[in-house]
Amino acid sequence: MKLATYKDGSRDGQLVVVSRDLATAHYANGIATRLQQVLDDWNFLSPQLEDLYTTLNQGKARHAFAFDPAMCMAPLPRAYAWVDGSAYLPHVERVRRARGADLPESLRSDPLVYQGGSDDFLGPCDDAPFASTESGIDFEAELAVVTGDVPMGATPAQALECIRLLMLANDWTLRELVPAELAKGFGFFQSKPATAFSPVAVTPDELGAAWSGGRVHLPLQTSWNGRPFGRVDAGSDMHFHFGQLIAHACRTRQLRAGAIVGSGTVSSQDAAQGCSCVAEKRALEMIEHGEPRTAYLQFGDTVRIELKGQDGQSVFGAIEQTVVEAA
Amino acid sequence: MKLATYKDGSRDGQLVVVSRDLATAHYANGIATRLQQVLDDWNFLSPQLEDLYTTLNQGKARHAFAFDPAMCMAPLPRAYAWVDGSAYLPHVERVRRARGADLPESLRSDPLVYQGGSDDFLGPCDDAPFASTESGIDFEAELAVVTGDVPMGATPAQALECIRLLMLANDWTLRELVPAELAKGFGFFQSKPATAFSPVAVTPDELGAAWSGGRVHLPLQTSWNGRPFGRVDAGSDMHFHFGQLIAHACRTRQLRAGAIVGSGTVSSQDAAQGCSCVAEKRALEMIEHGEPRTAYLQFGDTVRIELKGQDGQSVFGAIEQTVVEAA
Repeated sequence: MKLATYKDGSRDGQLVVVSRDLATAHYANGIATRLQQVLDDWNFLSPQLEDLYTTLNQGKARHAFAFDPAMCMAPLPRAYAWVDGSAYLPHVERVRRARGADLPESLRSDPLVYQGGSDDFLGPCDDAPFASTESGIDFEAELAVVTGDVPMGATPAQALECIRLLMLANDWTLRELVPAELAKGFGFFQSKPATAFSPVAVTPDELGAAWSGGRVHLPLQTSWNGRPFGRVDAGSDMHFHFGQLIAHACRTRQLRAGAIVGSGTVSSQDAAQGCSCVAEKRALEMIEHGEPRTAYLQFGDTVRIELKGQDGQSVFGAIEQTVVEAA
Repeated sequence: MKLATYKDGSRDGQLVVVSRDLATAHYANGIATRLQQVLDDWNFLSPQLEDLYTTLNQGKARHAFAFDPAMCMAPLPRAYAWVDGSAYLPHVERVRRARGADLPESLRSDPLVYQGGSDDFLGPCDDAPFASTESGIDFEAELAVVTGDVPMGATPAQALECIRLLMLANDWTLRELVPAELAKGFGFFQSKPATAFSPVAVTPDELGAAWSGGRVHLPLQTSWNGRPFGRVDAGSDMHFHFGQLIAHACRTRQLRAGAIVGSGTVSSQDAAQGCSCVAEKRALEMIEHGEPRTAYLQFGDTVRIELKGQDGQSVFGAIEQTVVEAA
């Protein structure tokens, strides 16, 4: 099942069911108006949405319309939790090395996660506004899951069973603000402005065999100003799978329905696959040339993030954003 | 105006208006059912709630009932943002010194804030569940504000105008998990389990002249197992006022209606006022005796946090929690 949230002028938008091929959509009213409402009452509402999804895919839905990603808010325009991990160790190693930071001793045994801002997400085609390019504007292409209720102390296997939906994320990061902010000891805040999510959120079955062991075994494609930047396998170097990330997040408290958990920047040991953020490319340049050669983003730059299934079709639709100067 | 959220078995509870003396309450249905709904549409809904509040205070509300704090969830049982600051420098200095951490160079010019978990708050009289006492269970008595929409780049003065409500918070902290977690560089996560909030949230006018310059100039009273632990003036040593904390939080992104911003543990240079968390008392003992002498909390311990107005009456009702072993 594929779900999206259409802009309607309200804070939470309007829930729509989207066909598997992303060609058509249908308002879910009569079943639910908002995605959070569905997550709050998943077992009752999701079968009704699945029925509508089947009808829509069969071309039999009465009020179907052409699906337009530009009309989408983030599937959850605001959420009660956005827990972003950093599960790809090549990313952690390269980026920390580049900023001269130590690698945590527990890197391979204890997931890195941070609590992100979740009150104001960007839609997949919304402009990304920043006050200045001097802050080092960078994208981070990620996968993310939306959970149901997860009890405190859940095991990774139990946590995997709590995953309701998957999305793509663009976790905008202001690189030049990171070192000073992390040096204060309290983690990211100003260096992590509003995150964007893909047009649709999908149930795990939409990924078929590519969803396995809590990982998505497909390449995540990122392009920058129309040029391919990364085509990075999201499965092979994901050291901690989503069940492990969720279990880490609920070790001392429960997670409640609608919590979003991110993978961190998708990365591969195989540098030929490219990168999912500029910081990593700069780190590789440092290693090869002794200096970074790629500048961070400028106003007017565009970023596109997409993941295609084994059939070559877009699973989530594309995140396509333009960097703009904040009004 | 004083607002609370009554338990009704749902995730968001039921909005009630509470009389100034906390003696009676009245369901707000007909106006709004949930506090977030009011914050989303404050200018339209809050005057209607104010009218009900006036009627209730006059003893003329038709369906008033006795107010029971034990029936309360947190005023916002879940929120889209919980941004906790650390605005009292005596707390920062004592606690960091005690764990051998450096003081940030920017301590006096750049507020410390972290993004807290906001999907699952505790009610004021809910038990606080923890897996083990070995994690160093500690309370932190704080003030918190709830904002309306705050644009990116708002000044401290503009940010002050966006404050809708004030509350008390008990920001439970697992002290023994803090050093290793902060050493990883991404800030608090497992060391900050679910936070509790006071029975009622109040509009700033309820504090009268004590609400001045973005600070609450009244003592915050904390007791532990029935014994007074702190009676700490919340105004004098709050280095960054709430407008400054909010402005810091919205420097690179907007904050949306219903965001909660916390003061951090209320603290005073005057040690005779006591403390608002055990970690600070231990830090003072280290300085005086060379070792901490007060153990962190045990299962069965109780904590009470309350703030009284200039008239001696409780403003927010009391947070009264018992530490219990997680099921």
